[in-house]
Amino acid sequence: MTYAESGVDIDKEEVAIKALIGEITQTRKGIGEPLGGHYAGMISFGKYALVLCTDGVGSKVLIASKIKKWDTVGIDCMAMNVNDALCVGAEPLAFVDYLAVDSPDPNFTREIGKGLKKAAEQANVSIIGGETASLPEIVNGFDLAGTVLSYVEKKKIITGERISPGDEIIGLKSSGIHSNGYSLVRNIIDHSSYDYDDAFPFDLYTNQTIGEVLLHPTAIYVKEILAVLKKIQVHGLAHITGGGLRNLNRLKETVKYEINNPMTPQKVFSFLQKLGSIDDHEMYQTFNMGMGFAIIVSSSDIDEAMNILSRHSSYDVQHVGTVKKGKGVSLPSKQLVYS
Amino acid sequence: MTYAESGVDIDKEEVAIKALIGEITQTRKGIGEPLGGHYAGMISFGKYALVLCTDGVGSKVLIASKIKKWDTVGIDCMAMNVNDALCVGAEPLAFVDYLAVDSPDPNFTREIGKGLKKAAEQANVSIIGGETASLPEIVNGFDLAGTVLSYVEKKKIITGERISPGDEIIGLKSSGIHSNGYSLVRNIIDHSSYDYDDAFPFDLYTNQTIGEVLLHPTAIYVKEILAVLKKIQVHGLAHITGGGLRNLNRLKETVKYEINNPMTPQKVFSFLQKLGSIDDHEMYQTFNMGMGFAIIVSSSDIDEAMNILSRHSSYDVQHVGTVKKGKGVSLPSKQLVYS
Repeated sequence: MTYAESGVDIDKEEVAIKALIGEITQTRKGIGEPLGGHYAGMISFGKYALVLCTDGVGSKVLIASKIKKWDTVGIDCMAMNVNDALCVGAEPLAFVDYLAVDSPDPNFTREIGKGLKKAAEQANVSIIGGETASLPEIVNGFDLAGTVLSYVEKKKIITGERISPGDEIIGLKSSGIHSNGYSLVRNIIDHSSYDYDDAFPFDLYTNQTIGEVLLHPTAIYVKEILAVLKKIQVHGLAHITGGGLRNLNRLKETVKYEINNPMTPQKVFSFLQKLGSIDDHEMYQTFNMGMGFAIIVSSSDIDEAMNILSRHSSYDVQHVGTVKKGKGVSLPSKQLVYS
Repeated sequence: MTYAESGVDIDKEEVAIKALIGEITQTRKGIGEPLGGHYAGMISFGKYALVLCTDGVGSKVLIASKIKKWDTVGIDCMAMNVNDALCVGAEPLAFVDYLAVDSPDPNFTREIGKGLKKAAEQANVSIIGGETASLPEIVNGFDLAGTVLSYVEKKKIITGERISPGDEIIGLKSSGIHSNGYSLVRNIIDHSSYDYDDAFPFDLYTNQTIGEVLLHPTAIYVKEILAVLKKIQVHGLAHITGGGLRNLNRLKETVKYEINNPMTPQKVFSFLQKLGSIDDHEMYQTFNMGMGFAIIVSSSDIDEAMNILSRHSSYDVQHVGTVKKGKGVSLPSKQLVYS
């Protein structure tokens, strides 16, 4: 089973997105001028860059509706956006949500609000607006997306440019599947003998149903990343999303990322892998496999960086690998290479 | 026929939105602190306020898909957001789009991009990012929303506070129905003998089908409003959206807005009104009825304001009424009052 076979053709998506972006040429000059090219998410604002990130929870919301538990998808929505913003070294400030529903129900929207509130606390972000649209003919159930505004001093923007062979790669443990790969996740469960209400068949998640384990909210890494940015010249930051380990390649293409000490994936990943007969190559390019965020620093900074991250993070911190000469991401223990 | 009967129960929506917002309490202090309360859309950023507005095109997209014309809904998406941002006196800077589709098709997304591009030029905004999500089980056709980042000096924020009896109200002509009330619009057409492909039965829109007339994109008022803000101390700005004339009441509740010289509604409104047997009261609280934006200035500034607006706007400018003592909005020629 693969992600593409589950109805999400990433290549087709990329072509569609390129077609849309290809039309976009307008840019302001001075205040509001894009930094780093179109669609890089940043504009000039005096000595600062203002950063906009927009993303949705995707089809994870279908599991929320399946088990009627809606108080965590707001966390996913915030997490996906603030973790993206962190990658350029920016501090999240304000958030707006976009909720499209087939029918406006206060008992449901209240639960959405609970997740957003909790996430805003974790991310230290002000939620300053939003839109709830009733679109019965367009939406089945609901769709949840959001946009976060962040800022960073221009001279402190992290582009990945400083990454060089000899740098070290630190991983932050994920909280589970986060918010990517859910078309494949649902495809696996739907083709198995399991139901979302069944007890999860591993010790790790005692008293939790499969649906609850799969719905576990995405980790928010704001506090630990801001703490490390304050003290250390970080070379690269990667939010491990839909492309799995491939996300590292986006940082800088002219080096090799060798993950020789990967974080141990949570049992939910081996459960899904076995159930769907998915090969390692597909797993590591679809899911985060235990590492939700990666930080790249020079070898002289690794100890201090690990120290700061450990003190500020609720998630495990691990030295997972090294930047080498070459190209692509390699995971020697699984004999995997993504270039 | 009413808006509520067309499946959009505004009261029910409001309860659902309040339930969501009721959960939101987290706010930052200092940089990122909300200005004007939660959900007012503004945060503090030094001497500036940064403003986030998020909105979608709503069910107007269904008409786009009906007649397979997708190159204008991007304009609607931008317009709804930048026109909202203008209302606090802010200048739009940057935009991100959120497009949810049932299937990613480059021929479709390219058309969406065309509209966004044209709108970005009109609004002088940089499009710096976006998300295109394939959600076949959640979305039928597509849903298009966006978020605009704007800025204004704190001391120049327009709150409506300065509005007082004796002030004058200027209207800017709308370009048609804009992007509100489309559940009612579609309900009217669907219950009539007309089809979206039929020729529009009035001279005004020669050679246009009903679908094309209904799809006409929302006016963008950035240039004219920024021009008037530069020269005149504007007291109030209202983007006339879903609530029709009721939008004026939101500016300040302790005065009366008397519209004694309303703009002439386009023929598309009388066509819909007759076809759906809708009363005037419902029309003026659902549609813009020819006036897309309202500007309130002191009586000593009206001539200069009219002059600036006329020079910078592609839309008709008209002195539509006066602020009086009292409450609510009145439209004497139709004997309508909204309080």
